[in-house]
Amino acid sequence: MTASRETFHTIWLQEQDDTIVQIIDQRQLPHEYVVVDLTSYRDGVHAISEMLVRGAPLIGATAAWSLYLAGLEGDRTADPLPFIRKAAAELGATRPTAVNLQWAIDRVLTVIENAGNTSFAPLLRREAEAICQEESEISRNIGLHGLALIEAAAAKKPGETVNILTHCNAGALATVAWGTATAPLYMAHAKGIPVHVWVDETRPRNQGSQLTAWELGQRGVPHTLIVDNAGGHLMQHGQVDLCITGTDRTTRCGDVANKIGTYLKALAANDNNIPFYVALPSTTIDWAIRDGVREIPIEQRDALEVSHIVGMVDGERKEVCTTANNTPVSNFAFDVTPARLVTGLITERGVCAASETGLLSLFPERE
Amino acid sequence: MTASRETFHTIWLQEQDDTIVQIIDQRQLPHEYVVVDLTSYRDGVHAISEMLVRGAPLIGATAAWSLYLAGLEGDRTADPLPFIRKAAAELGATRPTAVNLQWAIDRVLTVIENAGNTSFAPLLRREAEAICQEESEISRNIGLHGLALIEAAAAKKPGETVNILTHCNAGALATVAWGTATAPLYMAHAKGIPVHVWVDETRPRNQGSQLTAWELGQRGVPHTLIVDNAGGHLMQHGQVDLCITGTDRTTRCGDVANKIGTYLKALAANDNNIPFYVALPSTTIDWAIRDGVREIPIEQRDALEVSHIVGMVDGERKEVCTTANNTPVSNFAFDVTPARLVTGLITERGVCAASETGLLSLFPERE
Repeated sequence: MTASRETFHTIWLQEQDDTIVQIIDQRQLPHEYVVVDLTSYRDGVHAISEMLVRGAPLIGATAAWSLYLAGLEGDRTADPLPFIRKAAAELGATRPTAVNLQWAIDRVLTVIENAGNTSFAPLLRREAEAICQEESEISRNIGLHGLALIEAAAAKKPGETVNILTHCNAGALATVAWGTATAPLYMAHAKGIPVHVWVDETRPRNQGSQLTAWELGQRGVPHTLIVDNAGGHLMQHGQVDLCITGTDRTTRCGDVANKIGTYLKALAANDNNIPFYVALPSTTIDWAIRDGVREIPIEQRDALEVSHIVGMVDGERKEVCTTANNTPVSNFAFDVTPARLVTGLITERGVCAASETGLLSLFPERE
Repeated sequence: MTASRETFHTIWLQEQDDTIVQIIDQRQLPHEYVVVDLTSYRDGVHAISEMLVRGAPLIGATAAWSLYLAGLEGDRTADPLPFIRKAAAELGATRPTAVNLQWAIDRVLTVIENAGNTSFAPLLRREAEAICQEESEISRNIGLHGLALIEAAAAKKPGETVNILTHCNAGALATVAWGTATAPLYMAHAKGIPVHVWVDETRPRNQGSQLTAWELGQRGVPHTLIVDNAGGHLMQHGQVDLCITGTDRTTRCGDVANKIGTYLKALAANDNNIPFYVALPSTTIDWAIRDGVREIPIEQRDALEVSHIVGMVDGERKEVCTTANNTPVSNFAFDVTPARLVTGLITERGVCAASETGLLSLFPERE
């Protein structure tokens, strides 16, 4: 077990040498656990653009730590600031649609632009640590609020296992620590509540089978992988006590954009009177829009994500094509679950109804 | 193009030599189209047990044709009947739970048991042909009744494409010809109605991407493969005009057991006011049961179907493992869609409401 596994952080400074940042190459999971050293900001650019790391909070944190590496390098030059600004521009261009990425970069740059000409690396390290600390704290608070929901479910069936279904990976691997949808699961498990997680495979990119199942396994949380088609059947037969997913974007009125297929699970939960919760840091609330189905554009991604899949054969990772060569494919990445199907939103400030009234009760400054 | 492709039959006598039965090795689809000669009933045993053929009607037809091959061999012996009976027993043991298999065998045996000692092969050939003819006729009638529904949908949007979503393979490949859910699609396409089919991948065995997409492609029917997660999103955005699926078993009250995930699509169709039809030969109605969710046991299959997948790499078929080795997996094969979510049942006698009253209106003999 590495230090990172024990605490389940996804980015950290190397223990012996604090000029090296370490991450997990998530592309190799679940088949191999590969820790990668980032020794320059260019390594960070590569890690983000090649998707060694993914998930908005982790991308932001990786950019911040990469700027620390740029600071170490820049401080050895006569004029560090232009060097760091150039690194920031390169980092910002890696994933242009990742809001969290630019937010983290801007925050870090503001600090050093206002610092005067000095040694920048210590400042940059402090800011990266602060960003990670804040992200962890947000996840931890989401975990504590979600834990209360699991405790309530457990109280209804003393001595029995609480079965929770999740979709995609809103896990520690997508954040700096804990995850969002997974944070309540880890806390419940740590507290000795008998939880069992149904992990949706999450086609086409299989984040459920490749990431969520892996991280639950690392933490010893009982879980079972199912195909995305199976959740409705399980709910019909009393095998699911509650659902918790993450979200990429939540509207002012509580509509939730999340990985494609989330809507289908919410429909099944609703049809079987099973609570359906969505865990989110409030930074992902888009206060400017109301109607998710109408207003949120849904990204279409490469057809190869559907037709091809990576797996192990004869000890090697191979990509195979599972369809006929000429089969036309559509690949919608997200769908929108209307607020009426969402039992509640689990935020770092507490749990609220999936509605404008509910959200404003926790975030009155957005009135 | 082979003869089989033009007529889209799935089992036929070799044109030059009527002592040879031909089938498609469906395990190789969609990557390779391999026609296999059955020259003895033992080849038929192998074809059924190793799943070169699948789908209840096709399994029954293959058994009937295998008994014809047994007749050819038996007729060359002094006492053909015991030989044919032995072949029937071996064929019956291949897939013990396939009701259609034993039905076809019993029907054929009854004919020859009552025939007196004579040359059996011509009788067996006639019976196999009759079974195939009847199965084709059932599919053709399902097609005609379903066609009327597609024509009605087309009339509502003149000049525009009618988008139809299907799940799994209730296609020609599962039957002797036409298919069940696909029969209306083929007829609408042949009639010049602009149809487009959304093909659910259908995890875990991918019958949608590997069989349905292939057979629609062979017939030139416009189609697009999607992951099972995508249907709800498409329905929310007006991209689906109706859904047609098959079924393995329908209760007296219209509940429908079909491939896992069907229920989720029916929920989404219901939530978006999209008609959801199920096509079925009346032989699959179980008149003895009423409540599908309570009364139909759902088979759990091998976890390897979820964790492993076959595809092409470097011109070779390879099976890859997509999960971590120690990930626990559940694999439920079917789910039950309650009748309340089914707009109508398309049978060989017509379309009816998914209810006891509806079914009895078409099958009054079951009162």
